[in-house]
Amino acid sequence: MEKAIKEAKKGVKKGDSPFGACIAKNGKIIAVGHSTVLSGKNATNHAEINAIRKACKKLKSHKLKGCIIYSTTEPCPMCFSAIHWAEMKEIVFGTTIEDVKKLGFHELTIKAETMKKKGKSGVRIKSGHMRKECIELLEFWKKHGGKTY
Amino acid sequence: MEKAIKEAKKGVKKGDSPFGACIAKNGKIIAVGHSTVLSGKNATNHAEINAIRKACKKLKSHKLKGCIIYSTTEPCPMCFSAIHWAEMKEIVFGTTIEDVKKLGFHELTIKAETMKKKGKSGVRIKSGHMRKECIELLEFWKKHGGKTY
Repeated sequence: MEKAIKEAKKGVKKGDSPFGACIAKNGKIIAVGHSTVLSGKNATNHAEINAIRKACKKLKSHKLKGCIIYSTTEPCPMCFSAIHWAEMKEIVFGTTIEDVKKLGFHELTIKAETMKKKGKSGVRIKSGHMRKECIELLEFWKKHGGKTY
Repeated sequence: MEKAIKEAKKGVKKGDSPFGACIAKNGKIIAVGHSTVLSGKNATNHAEINAIRKACKKLKSHKLKGCIIYSTTEPCPMCFSAIHWAEMKEIVFGTTIEDVKKLGFHELTIKAETMKKKGKSGVRIKSGHMRKECIELLEFWKKHGGKTY
């Protein structure tokens, strides 16, 4: 998660939104990513999607079995579904969709747990991991202009 | 939709899955895409995501306001959410998630209408458009080896 926060801060400094992700397998980091929706002018460039795309490239596969994704904020339904498609093992996140919706993000208000249940996904979900540090990241972004999508 | 089907067939001939999408604005085609999950070894390379990425590049924006996306099959939750994030106007699709789940795709069983309702999205949804032709596309894919993700 530390790596995901560091990556998110890199993005914030460039004017992007405060989201970072890190994908690990067997304790080894495979890929990191931060949101580049604004700088890349692309609606799909969320931190998790960027990290998944990099990880697929690195592992030369559309499946990321056995991988864990650490997201500074709860994955939105787009990212949750991408994680499901990639057959990753676990999602670990800090702040929630509600936390960032309050900050002005145009979120679909569907929690990862609801997506899992409704969609019958096998992915494990752990919430509130390093929540304090992830809230600090949102504060850091506010100080840097706080641009939403 | 004809353009989306044609695009999907292009992908099938190269060994990809039978999904195509076409994005239009004011009656003009902005971008087309087909699934490249298998050939591109990337879990996020669904037809809709590929088309959205191209359209964002073309319109130089992460917003695709006023655009309609024609998908040969009902967008999965990943693609639905990407369409929501891009603030597109409408989704028009032929076959359904259930149709392709039966063929072996590892789908999250959440319909676009459910995503819209639960997530409070403003996107319009039209189902069953050129359904017969979209079913024929699935038959075409079966004849060409019928590879799933």
